[in-house]
Amino acid sequence: MSPDVHPFLVEPWQVREPKLDLAAMGQTESVFALSNGHIGLRGNLDEGEPHATPGTYLNSFYEKRPLPYAEGGYGYPESGQTIINVTNGKLIRLLVEDEPFDLRYGELHHHERVLDMRAGTLTRDVEWVSPAGRTVKVRSVRMVSLTQRAIAAIRYEVEVLDAPALLVVQSELVANEAMPARSGGDPRVEAALTDPLVSEFFRAGETSATLIHSTRQSGLRMAAAMDHEVYGPEGTSISTEAFEDIARTTVITRLEPGQTLSIVKYLGYGWSSRRSQPALYDQVRAALAAARYTGWEGLLAEQREYLDEFWSVADIELDGDAELQQAVRLAIFHVLQAMARAERRAIGAKGLTGEGYDGHTFWDTETFSLPMMSFLLPDAAADALRWRQSILPLAKERAAQLGLLGAAFPWRTIRGHECSGYWPAGTAAFHINADIADAVRRHVAATGDVDFEREVGLELLVETARFWRSLGHHDASGEFRIDGVTGPDEYTAIVDNNVYTNLMAQLNLLVAADVAARHSREAHRLGVNAEEMASWRDAAKAMRIPYDEALGVHPQSEGFTHHEVWDFENTPPDKYPLLLHYPYFDLYRKQVVKQADLVLAMQLRPDVFSLEQMRRNFAYYEAITVRDSSLSACTQAVIAAWTGHLDLAYDYLAESALIDLHDLAGNSDHGVHIASMAGTWTAIVTGFGGMRCDETGISFAPRLPPALTRISFGLCWHGRKLRVTLTAEEAEYRLVDGPPMRLMHHGEPVALADEPVSMPIPPVEPVEPVEQPYGRAPRARHPGS
Amino acid sequence: MSPDVHPFLVEPWQVREPKLDLAAMGQTESVFALSNGHIGLRGNLDEGEPHATPGTYLNSFYEKRPLPYAEGGYGYPESGQTIINVTNGKLIRLLVEDEPFDLRYGELHHHERVLDMRAGTLTRDVEWVSPAGRTVKVRSVRMVSLTQRAIAAIRYEVEVLDAPALLVVQSELVANEAMPARSGGDPRVEAALTDPLVSEFFRAGETSATLIHSTRQSGLRMAAAMDHEVYGPEGTSISTEAFEDIARTTVITRLEPGQTLSIVKYLGYGWSSRRSQPALYDQVRAALAAARYTGWEGLLAEQREYLDEFWSVADIELDGDAELQQAVRLAIFHVLQAMARAERRAIGAKGLTGEGYDGHTFWDTETFSLPMMSFLLPDAAADALRWRQSILPLAKERAAQLGLLGAAFPWRTIRGHECSGYWPAGTAAFHINADIADAVRRHVAATGDVDFEREVGLELLVETARFWRSLGHHDASGEFRIDGVTGPDEYTAIVDNNVYTNLMAQLNLLVAADVAARHSREAHRLGVNAEEMASWRDAAKAMRIPYDEALGVHPQSEGFTHHEVWDFENTPPDKYPLLLHYPYFDLYRKQVVKQADLVLAMQLRPDVFSLEQMRRNFAYYEAITVRDSSLSACTQAVIAAWTGHLDLAYDYLAESALIDLHDLAGNSDHGVHIASMAGTWTAIVTGFGGMRCDETGISFAPRLPPALTRISFGLCWHGRKLRVTLTAEEAEYRLVDGPPMRLMHHGEPVALADEPVSMPIPPVEPVEPVEQPYGRAPRARHPGS
Repeated sequence: MSPDVHPFLVEPWQVREPKLDLAAMGQTESVFALSNGHIGLRGNLDEGEPHATPGTYLNSFYEKRPLPYAEGGYGYPESGQTIINVTNGKLIRLLVEDEPFDLRYGELHHHERVLDMRAGTLTRDVEWVSPAGRTVKVRSVRMVSLTQRAIAAIRYEVEVLDAPALLVVQSELVANEAMPARSGGDPRVEAALTDPLVSEFFRAGETSATLIHSTRQSGLRMAAAMDHEVYGPEGTSISTEAFEDIARTTVITRLEPGQTLSIVKYLGYGWSSRRSQPALYDQVRAALAAARYTGWEGLLAEQREYLDEFWSVADIELDGDAELQQAVRLAIFHVLQAMARAERRAIGAKGLTGEGYDGHTFWDTETFSLPMMSFLLPDAAADALRWRQSILPLAKERAAQLGLLGAAFPWRTIRGHECSGYWPAGTAAFHINADIADAVRRHVAATGDVDFEREVGLELLVETARFWRSLGHHDASGEFRIDGVTGPDEYTAIVDNNVYTNLMAQLNLLVAADVAARHSREAHRLGVNAEEMASWRDAAKAMRIPYDEALGVHPQSEGFTHHEVWDFENTPPDKYPLLLHYPYFDLYRKQVVKQADLVLAMQLRPDVFSLEQMRRNFAYYEAITVRDSSLSACTQAVIAAWTGHLDLAYDYLAESALIDLHDLAGNSDHGVHIASMAGTWTAIVTGFGGMRCDETGISFAPRLPPALTRISFGLCWHGRKLRVTLTAEEAEYRLVDGPPMRLMHHGEPVALADEPVSMPIPPVEPVEPVEQPYGRAPRARHPGS
Repeated sequence: MSPDVHPFLVEPWQVREPKLDLAAMGQTESVFALSNGHIGLRGNLDEGEPHATPGTYLNSFYEKRPLPYAEGGYGYPESGQTIINVTNGKLIRLLVEDEPFDLRYGELHHHERVLDMRAGTLTRDVEWVSPAGRTVKVRSVRMVSLTQRAIAAIRYEVEVLDAPALLVVQSELVANEAMPARSGGDPRVEAALTDPLVSEFFRAGETSATLIHSTRQSGLRMAAAMDHEVYGPEGTSISTEAFEDIARTTVITRLEPGQTLSIVKYLGYGWSSRRSQPALYDQVRAALAAARYTGWEGLLAEQREYLDEFWSVADIELDGDAELQQAVRLAIFHVLQAMARAERRAIGAKGLTGEGYDGHTFWDTETFSLPMMSFLLPDAAADALRWRQSILPLAKERAAQLGLLGAAFPWRTIRGHECSGYWPAGTAAFHINADIADAVRRHVAATGDVDFEREVGLELLVETARFWRSLGHHDASGEFRIDGVTGPDEYTAIVDNNVYTNLMAQLNLLVAADVAARHSREAHRLGVNAEEMASWRDAAKAMRIPYDEALGVHPQSEGFTHHEVWDFENTPPDKYPLLLHYPYFDLYRKQVVKQADLVLAMQLRPDVFSLEQMRRNFAYYEAITVRDSSLSACTQAVIAAWTGHLDLAYDYLAESALIDLHDLAGNSDHGVHIASMAGTWTAIVTGFGGMRCDETGISFAPRLPPALTRISFGLCWHGRKLRVTLTAEEAEYRLVDGPPMRLMHHGEPVALADEPVSMPIPPVEPVEPVEQPYGRAPRARHPGS
């Protein structure tokens, strides 16, 4: 899938680009993006150009765009929401003796960028000779603060090497940057997204400036402000000016060789759909004041402290594969960046690293990211679910519009409104409601947080259970059916009794009834009574789960195994992803699976599949799954590990982990793949660690893949911190923090207190190999391959 | 469904509007539209205004329009084709002493319009008092010639009643008339359809003028020309001028009371995608010259002769229901108008009477119109199928694009390109291919035209058979399945083994093999060999036809009868048509049928259903069919008649026949419903007449509905003309023209030569009544209701 040349060096804690690779600029902008979940800065060069896609994002700050239809239909959303590039505060332009510092001209002696995952910074070192022959060194360090949510900061240093030079530095805020086209040329969409920001206010001080803008259609207001500390030789001049769409602090100085001009730029961002312009102005100025008070070194120190604390739990050590070690840490780091300070706002599929999928959030958050974050940063996970709770009024409206009870969450959205423009793959993918419910269940199982369960979880569970009860129906034989929906696999749509959907809905109904029983007073307030709870339990019990007796496997949905199998032998590699080369009608009616569906059901509902059944199902679906989605390899890794295909699991783990470092999907320029990155954690902890967690407790069934000599991972559970270390022979469980606890290891109870406990790992039974479709095996990485 | 007040009087051969009804203007413009299948003129007032929709159409003269998608997909058509209002030659404006003749001002003493179905004319009589008090009588007679395809003509007479008056008549050609918006506001579509004609040429003579235009995107060229004969008092002045978008012949005269000014306007139209401007100019001028040579009276005489000949076969007499008598004649007349001179071009769902459905042709032609026209005007029916043959290259390309063999005909089109912007209801409705094949089979059975079978039919049958063979597949049990398609019922989509589709595909495969065997040399030239024919027969034999043993009915498609039944009791009348008030996802997953699907399968494949099975199926589907499509009542009428529900059949017949006279669908302003009108014929002849026709011959099993005392209908069969007359007790068969023949009457052979033969009609077995969904029974019209 990927060429073997990548822009980055392999190091344990850093991602280093040793020289500028213009061709990979879109990818490096995404991988080097910094974010705290509230502010996102793509890894654009300080001077702005050249670029692939300029990107400065504020979580949930979006513009509306028309959703056109050749043939409309009832309930189709008329407008979508799309993340927009907000006021760019990253820009620092440099003039060296009236030559603009631009890497496309002059001579580049050195260009290195380093993302440091412990420092939380992006550093850039450049040595450049201007066309006129002046040599300068530029070093910038950029951060988006994890501790001060509204703040980003840049330290920008210029040194002149061989001769004195007059330098002009322009540090800017720029709104409405010219952007590459992105809508496939629909002029109405381009119109909506060209110059999306309308100036409301601008003001400049001596070293600082503020721009306030609002969007045309979505009615949101944002403020961006900057302030500067400048360290230069005597005579250095500083001035600032502001206009509608630009503010500029200009620093002029003459440097002797060896002298350095150093500028610290503090950036403050804020937005609101309600707060007035003066209130927003004060808000960002206050944030800036606090940042200046903390100072550059103070911000760096806070950042490192925050990350040290995070990594003490979250770090995964993989001995035996340095490339994968780096990839896994990058994956964890990017998921952290996407979620850390999102604070009850949506987590986009790309975090805040690019404009892919219009910045929308999908089921990715609940099914791929929260399984990790509930165990690593439970507060952030809880906030993500509190966001879902906050959009319940919209989800209830949508359900009513669709003729259903309870809540129908949007398939894709930024602020809670359905933004799917193709309903068979969007609206009909109702499983998202059960995915949210399952994330609630899992979060409570991981944290034991009864307050969360009562205040947040209960309402989400009740409204989704009501949804399922109204979506399905009992047929004449008494089975409860859910017809006409789309499961996770997007190469099949509008089917009856998708096993994944039905199993997840079943769990949703059962857990809702249990939780309502536990919090009966609050449930009563939501209108739940014993009859309703009984109707949920009855529907769950009668849930239809199709099974193909002849093949001994579960059909993905009703009738699926009777469909023609896709002609994989005659599908050349350049026809993947299939959806770009074949019509939906053909994909839908054949046995070809874009992404784990039944296989994901086995991961999320291990209680209803025997190991033998898992093996048969896995073998069947491996042979028809093409992984045209990045939401697949991690799940296949888990089930491969559970069913004893450890080498294959390892190959899938690598595919999942390296997705952006190696640009495996060919679209990392649109932003990193947060779900695949989070799935990497799941592949290791749930897959190789065999971790399962429900209301009865936490258990492990670890297996080390032959490629590695050791895996160590940590997690939080019920207020404790736990670290698990695997070798081929044994697993060591260590309670890093918290009161004694019990866990299960391969079915045996383990009591854990101050002392680590080591347990032997039973040998793996040999299994029949499984096969993937022609040409679609994962790249072999395991030893002996 | 409809109010009981309608704009028209009931008369046997005329449709008379006794006074102008501005609110019904859209409907009257459609009902009063004149067409010969090549030119279509909506029944707009001579003076152009007021209007609902100005309309002048040329068959297959279209412009391209963008088809936008919120989320695109492989194989989605990027642009559609839409019929456009071409140069309007109907316009004749009148100035009475400098007051424009406009019915919205002054006083209207009398206004009557009459469509005469034997004369083939639209006549208008007006007596109007101008705001200044001048009284004039205006009488116009308009025709579109059935004998001279390029010609329309108008005789326009003005008489002054009480005082002399100076009159100015402006007879015009106007291109790019301002039109009401029609795209739901998509600005790109509006842009494409505003001023669609680009002037290429204009010329004026003394009494004549020509305008030539071309379209911007579709690259078509058209010419419109007019010439005039003027009869007025001495001193009458005539002059003509022409500009880019308008040509105007001005007649000025002063009339004394009792004097008349009479103008005959000849209109010639032509278009081509290839012919040069001079060639096109000469073409329309020659047509005009021929029309002037024929003269107004000559044109009227030709028209009446053509219609006399047509009605001698086609007329249906219904004794006992004058309103229905009129409606049935109007239906036959409009189908004739849509098809008479279409000559190897597409027949739109609205004919040339309005812009509904963008002027597209669907399966309506083959499944609803040709069953009538193969028996009434076989040459026109053959031409419609020759048009399908002419677009085979495009249909083969489309099949290849979809990864299939043979030909995939477009679901909706004007010139042969797929124009469906919602594939689940469009592209996936592959049954259209079998519908075309069945129209071929039926046409040959009706005409015995072996040359047609060899030259036209064979190729259509072979390429559609190839299509089905590649669309379906054999499953493990050896059954041949057709998965993931959409049947006729548009409230269910993307299903497996739709019974209608599978039965029609089966017949397609069998007939293709038989016809290829009959014309083996020509088949060989198409690459057909014995193996391929065997594979068609094998697939047909193994065709899966799902059956629900528990219910004893055929499910419309796999699993259909397990779906939840729509909650009809809680669906109020104003929520119909359902598709405007409920999302597709909900309609698709429930048992609710928009239009006859399984019931239509029984009409078209009576060979595979026993009477008892028909009764059970009909009862089952009646209870869930809501008739939100105008392509349903006629089919329900047929099966109701066959299964002994004669009163219900009669009610459905009336709904089908009155659709535009009573504006039952509420959208007659977009054009008349050609398929429903043709279905009216089928309801009578195939339903009450019990007519079936296949390669073994023609048979009848007539039953008179209790509401009528007599039905008489005619048809052509194998070069003969036959008339069948039913009373309650007996059927009389009369061979009007042609050699002796045999037919079957209720299973008994009848030999027919010069003398009519009367046969007794057996009594009807009593049957259990059937029920429609709550509120969806047809309006009861039968006696005792």
